[in-house]
Amino acid sequence: MKKLKYGLVGGGPGSFIGVAHRKAINIDGMAELVAGCFSRTVEKCKSTGEELGIDPERCYASYEEMAKKESEREDGIDFVVITTPNVSHFAIAKAFLKAGINVSCEKPLCLTIEEADEIEKLVNETGLLFLVTYTYVGHVTAKHIREYIRSGKLGKIRAVVGEYPQGWLAYEGENGGKQGAWRCDPSQSGGTNCLGDLGTHVENAVSIMTGLKIKRVLAKMDVVVPGRVLDDNDYVMVEFEGGATGLYWTSQIAIGHDNDLQIRIYGEKGSIEWRQTECEKVTMISTDGTISELHRGNPGIEENAAKYGRLPSGHTEGWLESMGNLYRSFINCINKKAEGEFTEEMIDYPTIKDGVEGVKFLHACIESSKKGNIWVEI
Amino acid sequence: MKKLKYGLVGGGPGSFIGVAHRKAINIDGMAELVAGCFSRTVEKCKSTGEELGIDPERCYASYEEMAKKESEREDGIDFVVITTPNVSHFAIAKAFLKAGINVSCEKPLCLTIEEADEIEKLVNETGLLFLVTYTYVGHVTAKHIREYIRSGKLGKIRAVVGEYPQGWLAYEGENGGKQGAWRCDPSQSGGTNCLGDLGTHVENAVSIMTGLKIKRVLAKMDVVVPGRVLDDNDYVMVEFEGGATGLYWTSQIAIGHDNDLQIRIYGEKGSIEWRQTECEKVTMISTDGTISELHRGNPGIEENAAKYGRLPSGHTEGWLESMGNLYRSFINCINKKAEGEFTEEMIDYPTIKDGVEGVKFLHACIESSKKGNIWVEI
Amino acid sequence: MKKLKYGLVGGGPGSFIGVAHRKAINIDGMAELVAGCFSRTVEKCKSTGEELGIDPERCYASYEEMAKKESEREDGIDFVVITTPNVSHFAIAKAFLKAGINVSCEKPLCLTIEEADEIEKLVNETGLLFLVTYTYVGHVTAKHIREYIRSGKLGKIRAVVGEYPQGWLAYEGENGGKQGAWRCDPSQSGGTNCLGDLGTHVENAVSIMTGLKIKRVLAKMDVVVPGRVLDDNDYVMVEFEGGATGLYWTSQIAIGHDNDLQIRIYGEKGSIEWRQTECEKVTMISTDGTISELHRGNPGIEENAAKYGRLPSGHTEGWLESMGNLYRSFINCINKKAEGEFTEEMIDYPTIKDGVEGVKFLHACIESSKKGNIWVEI
Amino acid sequence: MKKLKYGLVGGGPGSFIGVAHRKAINIDGMAELVAGCFSRTVEKCKSTGEELGIDPERCYASYEEMAKKESEREDGIDFVVITTPNVSHFAIAKAFLKAGINVSCEKPLCLTIEEADEIEKLVNETGLLFLVTYTYVGHVTAKHIREYIRSGKLGKIRAVVGEYPQGWLAYEGENGGKQGAWRCDPSQSGGTNCLGDLGTHVENAVSIMTGLKIKRVLAKMDVVVPGRVLDDNDYVMVEFEGGATGLYWTSQIAIGHDNDLQIRIYGEKGSIEWRQTECEKVTMISTDGTISELHRGNPGIEENAAKYGRLPSGHTEGWLESMGNLYRSFINCINKKAEGEFTEEMIDYPTIKDGVEGVKFLHACIESSKKGNIWVEI
Repeated sequence: MKKLKYGLVGGGPGSFIGVAHRKAINIDGMAELVAGCFSRTVEKCKSTGEELGIDPERCYASYEEMAKKESEREDGIDFVVITTPNVSHFAIAKAFLKAGINVSCEKPLCLTIEEADEIEKLVNETGLLFLVTYTYVGHVTAKHIREYIRSGKLGKIRAVVGEYPQGWLAYEGENGGKQGAWRCDPSQSGGTNCLGDLGTHVENAVSIMTGLKIKRVLAKMDVVVPGRVLDDNDYVMVEFEGGATGLYWTSQIAIGHDNDLQIRIYGEKGSIEWRQTECEKVTMISTDGTISELHRGNPGIEENAAKYGRLPSGHTEGWLESMGNLYRSFINCINKKAEGEFTEEMIDYPTIKDGVEGVKFLHACIESSKKGNIWVEI
Repeated sequence: MKKLKYGLVGGGPGSFIGVAHRKAINIDGMAELVAGCFSRTVEKCKSTGEELGIDPERCYASYEEMAKKESEREDGIDFVVITTPNVSHFAIAKAFLKAGINVSCEKPLCLTIEEADEIEKLVNETGLLFLVTYTYVGHVTAKHIREYIRSGKLGKIRAVVGEYPQGWLAYEGENGGKQGAWRCDPSQSGGTNCLGDLGTHVENAVSIMTGLKIKRVLAKMDVVVPGRVLDDNDYVMVEFEGGATGLYWTSQIAIGHDNDLQIRIYGEKGSIEWRQTECEKVTMISTDGTISELHRGNPGIEENAAKYGRLPSGHTEGWLESMGNLYRSFINCINKKAEGEFTEEMIDYPTIKDGVEGVKFLHACIESSKKGNIWVEI
Repeated sequence: MKKLKYGLVGGGPGSFIGVAHRKAINIDGMAELVAGCFSRTVEKCKSTGEELGIDPERCYASYEEMAKKESEREDGIDFVVITTPNVSHFAIAKAFLKAGINVSCEKPLCLTIEEADEIEKLVNETGLLFLVTYTYVGHVTAKHIREYIRSGKLGKIRAVVGEYPQGWLAYEGENGGKQGAWRCDPSQSGGTNCLGDLGTHVENAVSIMTGLKIKRVLAKMDVVVPGRVLDDNDYVMVEFEGGATGLYWTSQIAIGHDNDLQIRIYGEKGSIEWRQTECEKVTMISTDGTISELHRGNPGIEENAAKYGRLPSGHTEGWLESMGNLYRSFINCINKKAEGEFTEEMIDYPTIKDGVEGVKFLHACIESSKKGNIWVEI
Repeated sequence: MKKLKYGLVGGGPGSFIGVAHRKAINIDGMAELVAGCFSRTVEKCKSTGEELGIDPERCYASYEEMAKKESEREDGIDFVVITTPNVSHFAIAKAFLKAGINVSCEKPLCLTIEEADEIEKLVNETGLLFLVTYTYVGHVTAKHIREYIRSGKLGKIRAVVGEYPQGWLAYEGENGGKQGAWRCDPSQSGGTNCLGDLGTHVENAVSIMTGLKIKRVLAKMDVVVPGRVLDDNDYVMVEFEGGATGLYWTSQIAIGHDNDLQIRIYGEKGSIEWRQTECEKVTMISTDGTISELHRGNPGIEENAAKYGRLPSGHTEGWLESMGNLYRSFINCINKKAEGEFTEEMIDYPTIKDGVEGVKFLHACIESSKKGNIWVEI
């Protein structure tokens, strides 16, 4: 397979997620970083570029310039990775799509439903590939759950309990440094902080694992820490098409939780439990009550999931490998497209559709919460 | 301390909870079973009595007779234990209170708020002692949490996440044998099955551990298994006085969960996690994120909780010991009263007040759910 | 079944294990304490007797008197429970056996192999029943493991890894109060402290669960805390008849371990893990690597084990219930004997044979350790 | 920092560990693969090279040629990575050291003590850097334990219990595919299979975490599965200089264990538990018995360990990151040397010394086992 070239928007000094994308792509060595607009000033951008060994000519002062120049080059980037705060996802994604460049974009996709629809329209028109990096669904065990449920082994899904508590924003007078500052600032993150950052992962993981579509939501989004403007603790009741229900909880004030995304799925024929902090295992409960723990790499893992493993079972893979799995399929699709062999079935990563659904979920929740916790259809 | 005499209503063949009360009281040997109305027929009742070595004269055909006769005896029972289905709690409790006999009653206290108020009035008028056997709050670790929070070590409580999933009623065409039959029958269990059986424990455990009072609830009580009339999966949002919030989930369709009551409490200064299936430990998380596990018997356990332990740490105590702890205080109070040394501060068990609160919680939830999941004040 | 009468030697003020036996027997109400020699002075003994409601006439100044008087009474005790320090087990057991009274005795059975052989001879001659209270094998999950292995489901056993670490004697200048004082005193506990107190449980649990007989041992018994005379940290290699091997570790200096008996068994067809601190579950691993957790009360528990459960799964049973299970069978056998219906197959508790094996194991280890860690045949 | 160039010996089709090294080095992008001798035939070697985008000229038919040619190039490799079966480590390492090229070599270092001594001599003479890839000690939590113990917080170490069970070779007639075949073949792996593959990790992890030096060992190395020549289940007693003791267990027949390296360390002032399968956390137990769980990324992690983390706590890092941490320091040292700024204190990876110690440990164990499980000095 051809080694691709990619560019990065965001990922300057102090960035968490931009650096993470680079390392995740590195693991399998399937694409090489060759261009970037890492920071808002040219100097900072070139300095980061130098550290990373990027041709200074391809360290751009603006994403608009980057999109334009890269699309004009013979050896231009095959895809761009967008890792800026939420507020700018829309404009940047649009610029690169218009320049004919495939896009990988952090979640949530953008701020409004209108923006989301516009990006989706553009993706459909251009036929470009679009990855929304909901990292957690990349893990082998998450894919196993999807395959297992698809095959009918859990029967009809009845209830889903999802949670994603963190504790890093529990303290008054603190906003979690650079990472917290923009998340708590409505002008950068949109109308939600906690639900937008964490709830969108719960929504997506449930959607991808179970295939269920949300019909309506009832949300209670609270601001707990004094002085904060946006939500930091959220409860959501969910009704899915077909009759299943869900209960989601996300929090940034749950001291002691680092990053505890957990999904529990209850079907007619059994249950499944999954925690991202213990992502090397999945717990499957059968109707006789026996609780079985399956590890990535064990024979019981579904084939379409197992194939993503890099190491034998017991040699732990983690967060970077999960993200790497999303890129593995994304890069494979880009390559196949170039070779004229691409089909939709090859897509094994969250697409623009998932991104749009995420934005719609958030806006239904915001509306529900504002109107006094009533049901809002999606 | 004087060994007391007690009688049992319920607890005939096939009973779970009646037998459990007997064994729990046995452990510490503080009271002796001397009378009973174990079943609805005299024959069955006498047969159980014979097995238990009860004087046949004190095996009664009806609870009315039992209340009357026992109150007339010189050596009559010091307290009665009510372990029948919910529907009869009210009448039985009333009969014994009117006969001047202290009462221990299973939860939920009774079916309606009117009944609950009437029992409370009777308790206040007679000055008798009334224990509602919310078993789980009897455990040393549950008491530790209460003491720890009371002392202010967790700061202001912000959020409480409680759950109590079971899986035994997940199957269509089955209703869990004798135990399930009456719980799923509105005529015996009242307007709720799952929330009444399990949610009332969540409500009580949170109330006793945190001291928080519920202001209003928003509940979604669903019937999941086809053919069932009463709820078997419930979601409840809670607002407490003072600003804290809660999210409760109870279920009988969560395959793989035997009996998983779990309470997580998030305060300004830390968090606490507690699961009744691992009731020998409590997990305390401090503001620096360190997760500390404390075992019953360890030096860190609060004194007013630790004193209830019977065995050194690592020698597991369980459900019967938890219930035994409730009885230990209840029996102590009865004895102290007889000696004229009783004060309210001696009460360390759930009282009629907790029972009444439980019934009000259930009815607010039922109303909320019926009206389309709106907020209902308590 | 007839309610039996029993007497207690030991169990005075400050006692742990004597009180524990009483509570364990209480749970099921199958026997009643009616006599005792609780302490070494008459006053203390009578004072304990008064607290427990024992007829002062049956509070004896010496166990010799107790054995004599009780054997002469029409309504004398059906069995005696011996809970004194190791040094006196032999003489007390002998006295009661000679008086024709069944015996329940704490482990280790006695100090020397000669003593052990003499007690066994006496048991065989008198035909009396003799329970050695290795508490942990009483648990339902321990019995499940025994039945599972007996049925051949694990195949031939290949290796057993057992451990029993505690931390309470880790501190210099402290000897764990009254409980530690006699254990660390060679004149009261015999030639070993830690291995005698804990290793004997590992040896017995492995023996009962697997049915394996030890051929030879190689032991390293160390005194770690300065100032101590007896071992407080022990390693033992074991060879069983038939080719399986074992590795045992016991310790009292392992800070953080309350009482962590753990047995792991590896067979041709799978593995089993069991920890007494989580005695409500057993972990079974099949050849495909799937790790299954089974809870007491689940359908998968072997019938001959499951029948000992008192509560539904998820309603935790613990240490007292485990000990209670030993007494349940012991008391049943005594009753059956009285009715002339007793057969050896009814015995489901550790007998004099287990007690003798335990003493032999300890002495082989002591010899091995003294001679520089060489193999010693049993 | 300069991006280095490296070559790989081993890592052809079907290889596990060669591929793993490549991915581990990739993560941080600090070195680039430019040369290799991937397989024993030129064709296979060139084919792997093509897949990896290596210049065909630098795909060598033999490691001798590779060492020679690369050392002659202006742009020759900065270091070589040796990932072949144990038997060839010695000759390959020697060839590259003699060619003046830094070496990273898989464990165990080589087959005999003579070989080990010769490599060490060569390293000392050439002054080249030598990494032995004991992967597990690279993890942040492992480094934390080392720093914590070094700082005296655990007091004097008293006992260490280490284990590394696997189950993949439990089955008769199977030898675990290509990976198992050479490990079970004395001509390729030396005089030990299981202890050489796994025990060497236990020995090294304990050595690096605690700083303890082994004085003597007593080993029992068993062949359990019929038809096998080399050990597949091993027990080792250890005495360290200064009085601490250890007990190690390694196994390949422990069904259900994927790869369960676990180290437990008991000191005067507390204890530490660490499992590589849960390498994101470390459990620290203080003298009051409180069990504290610390996560990578939490404030309590020692600074010299924490700095290796790439992601915020709760975003799991795993095995590749652990190995990557070894390379991070190794590559840094090579760079610093080139810049003339290198000092010994910069070394934060297992060196030739650790490799030699590992070989000596294995040979002492083999001698002990052959002579009937006697103590053998190291």
